[in-house]
Amino acid sequence: MSGGAHILSIEQFHRDDIETLFITADRMEPYAQRRKMTRVLEGAILGNMFFEASTRTRISFGSAFNLLGGEVRESVGTESSSLVKGESLADTARVLSGYSDIICMRHPLEGSVAEFASASRVPVINGGDGSNEHPSQALLDLYTIQKEIMARGRTIDGLRIAMIGDLRYGRTVHSLCKLLCLYERVRVVLVSPRELAMPEQYVEALQTAGHHVTITEELESSISSVDIVYSTRIQEERFQDRQQADLYRGRFRLNQAIYTRHCEPNTVIMHPLPRDSRAEANELDRDLDQNPNLAIFRQTDNGLIVRMALFALILDVAGIFENYAQDVRWYNPRIG
Amino acid sequence: MSGGAHILSIEQFHRDDIETLFITADRMEPYAQRRKMTRVLEGAILGNMFFEASTRTRISFGSAFNLLGGEVRESVGTESSSLVKGESLADTARVLSGYSDIICMRHPLEGSVAEFASASRVPVINGGDGSNEHPSQALLDLYTIQKEIMARGRTIDGLRIAMIGDLRYGRTVHSLCKLLCLYERVRVVLVSPRELAMPEQYVEALQTAGHHVTITEELESSISSVDIVYSTRIQEERFQDRQQADLYRGRFRLNQAIYTRHCEPNTVIMHPLPRDSRAEANELDRDLDQNPNLAIFRQTDNGLIVRMALFALILDVAGIFENYAQDVRWYNPRIG
Amino acid sequence: MSGGAHILSIEQFHRDDIETLFITADRMEPYAQRRKMTRVLEGAILGNMFFEASTRTRISFGSAFNLLGGEVRESVGTESSSLVKGESLADTARVLSGYSDIICMRHPLEGSVAEFASASRVPVINGGDGSNEHPSQALLDLYTIQKEIMARGRTIDGLRIAMIGDLRYGRTVHSLCKLLCLYERVRVVLVSPRELAMPEQYVEALQTAGHHVTITEELESSISSVDIVYSTRIQEERFQDRQQADLYRGRFRLNQAIYTRHCEPNTVIMHPLPRDSRAEANELDRDLDQNPNLAIFRQTDNGLIVRMALFALILDVAGIFENYAQDVRWYNPRIG
Repeated sequence: MSGGAHILSIEQFHRDDIETLFITADRMEPYAQRRKMTRVLEGAILGNMFFEASTRTRISFGSAFNLLGGEVRESVGTESSSLVKGESLADTARVLSGYSDIICMRHPLEGSVAEFASASRVPVINGGDGSNEHPSQALLDLYTIQKEIMARGRTIDGLRIAMIGDLRYGRTVHSLCKLLCLYERVRVVLVSPRELAMPEQYVEALQTAGHHVTITEELESSISSVDIVYSTRIQEERFQDRQQADLYRGRFRLNQAIYTRHCEPNTVIMHPLPRDSRAEANELDRDLDQNPNLAIFRQTDNGLIVRMALFALILDVAGIFENYAQDVRWYNPRIG
Repeated sequence: MSGGAHILSIEQFHRDDIETLFITADRMEPYAQRRKMTRVLEGAILGNMFFEASTRTRISFGSAFNLLGGEVRESVGTESSSLVKGESLADTARVLSGYSDIICMRHPLEGSVAEFASASRVPVINGGDGSNEHPSQALLDLYTIQKEIMARGRTIDGLRIAMIGDLRYGRTVHSLCKLLCLYERVRVVLVSPRELAMPEQYVEALQTAGHHVTITEELESSISSVDIVYSTRIQEERFQDRQQADLYRGRFRLNQAIYTRHCEPNTVIMHPLPRDSRAEANELDRDLDQNPNLAIFRQTDNGLIVRMALFALILDVAGIFENYAQDVRWYNPRIG
Repeated sequence: MSGGAHILSIEQFHRDDIETLFITADRMEPYAQRRKMTRVLEGAILGNMFFEASTRTRISFGSAFNLLGGEVRESVGTESSSLVKGESLADTARVLSGYSDIICMRHPLEGSVAEFASASRVPVINGGDGSNEHPSQALLDLYTIQKEIMARGRTIDGLRIAMIGDLRYGRTVHSLCKLLCLYERVRVVLVSPRELAMPEQYVEALQTAGHHVTITEELESSISSVDIVYSTRIQEERFQDRQQADLYRGRFRLNQAIYTRHCEPNTVIMHPLPRDSRAEANELDRDLDQNPNLAIFRQTDNGLIVRMALFALILDVAGIFENYAQDVRWYNPRIG
């Protein structure tokens, strides 16, 4: 991840890249919390090209760039884009990369961001290309895991984690499995309906990395000895047979009562938001909101600082951004 | 309205809040007119979240923040938002409030902004929640009234105002009535078709405040002894019976001939834009455009400086923004 | 083009305006390439009002303004605009021009931008009003021509250019013809199907300016002795008779083989992107991408610097922007 690198896939990351990224992210935290500000990227422009809408990912990238002092130009959707007139992604990249210093791109088609990047004259970050990759989400999940369990005296080496829900279609849990392969002695419990089980390739990757994998349909027993419970949503439309869906309804749902009865006291709860808070939803109950181990909003906060760190590393200012630090002059609710 | 306060409703304002706001707004005017600029909020981020589109309100808030030196991240519409996936407003607020220092939010549902604010970690300004509240509009209206009539040697205490048109559904006139209750000896003439009369609660509030209220369907006599004519649009769809609409067509319309014949020389004309300029419209004629008492575009200009003042007060830089003043280096059409 | 001028039409430009613009653009190049940065417009706001979507034109204007240090407030589309509620363009202009220091506007209706500008209190740049004008595109085309042929030891006086494809509906080639009338001894070859021939008025204008005009349907012979080949797309829908379209298919298409066989060695290829890269497209083949004389992406890069120059001239900072130059602190792929 040297200056100028594209960020297209988590597969490009080695363990030392991750460690550099996380150390940089730690240094970004006071800036994200507005205890200080930095103007290091003053004059730089991010092209935030969301050919598929995603409000919070777009704003998280944009705010991260603003927090480093840079400007953001944006686009949402494809209707007004030249792509619909038959322009190739390569031509679009050649044009747009003349307008900014770095591009973050989201696009509904798998592989589109890599194709775009190959013709771009500036670094490109993949903000999600269909069901394929969304590397900054995977990195913020892993960063959250490390931060949460370090506070509990543990490390990712030796981590115990349960992944729950739709493990078949969930892009985030797939990426997390890949990243965990860079670490040692991880115990992974995979909890899902059989129809939505983790694809074999990820299970094998974990095992090849020497990790211990348990596959089950039983929630309660699975969450009793883990550091992290990573919950994902089960969409009923995923079941070919709705009766099958009925059979599983509520069985992978976590609430405070279940947590208290089955989890160790400091087990961390994560989820790749948004969380469906409607009554019929089958994921995290709102009664967990007062539980200090619910880390779901710390995840999105960490997303901001991981993205700041990515920008700083790619644009080669990770070594100097603190030289441009200034005091924050306005009201800061985070420090009162 | 101390540092960190939410701005959700005009009901939260006391008279001294209004006075502080208006004094601050006065100090913002040279900055809005680009006679000077200030960089006091350099590094700060406004989350301009318009879950319902409103181009000019959105841009007015965004420009106001830019004029103080801050950055703006934006969203328009709800399609790409997690709200459609069942996320609660509280969860949305917890996430989005991590990305900015202050949020301006517009949403089609009544009460939604207050609900959002209760979970937000940063101050929230209500940019309009359905038919409920749009406090910055009400404040800019009152600020305009004060500025216009002060130039004519009068004050809001003792104001004489006629409100004309759709007084039943017009959110702006309702809010204005509430704000006028903070002042003394106001004479209010309410001019509308009976079907679109001012709801009883606002009439009672005015009377309880000791104001003199006249209710009428007669335009000409109503505008003869007032300082302000506040006109609003009558949408024909508001009438259950279209024949009823025919009956009233044109009766609440103001043009230069009517103004000259019936109004005192310096009567100020206001309107909560947009004004329908099509031939069949029933509000302010374009022949009033040369009338120096037509204050409708001064209203929108005042909106900018009132919003600057709100930001400065909430973010606690009202006392210091002038310390960051700089000269404007570029062509300024306002000063030639 | 003095400080404060609107840019509505290329017809307002005299030859000395163009020369001033191009000299200013040359001075912008190091800033566009991030060899340096300038903060001269820090504190200024561009209102980038695209009432018709056009991603790259919008982002090019926005980035150009950012590169000079200014902020950008934007709108895309008309749905959320007050225009749909019957507001006149004059009213919209009076309101919006209070929010920014300069406005760039695109709108689907011919003449709309001029109408808007006549009521605006700040300078307005036409970013395209229907099939009428898009002056910055014409200027970037001419700037590209000058830059490319100067590198080949030639000038626009004495230029030899072939325009190919849809010359009837192509706004860009019409504007280019008008601009060429400001120069001397130009030889223009117009190559198109008869149905899509250049309208008589532009041919006459060229001839009145003393230029030599050839009209033909034959591609190969036309491109053999020119400095510039300016290709445009032929949309099959333009033909009333589809059999007619079949007759012409592929006859105005340029690829590397045709280029090598017929063109002089350094003939420059231009195109007003986007280029349709689908197999059935009839314009520039992708096998030209390695040809160093393919200037199509230099055109869009030049668009950025021409727009920077327009902003600098209109806002009267062309004489001082270099005084606010700073070093660029971040990774620059353009200089490694």
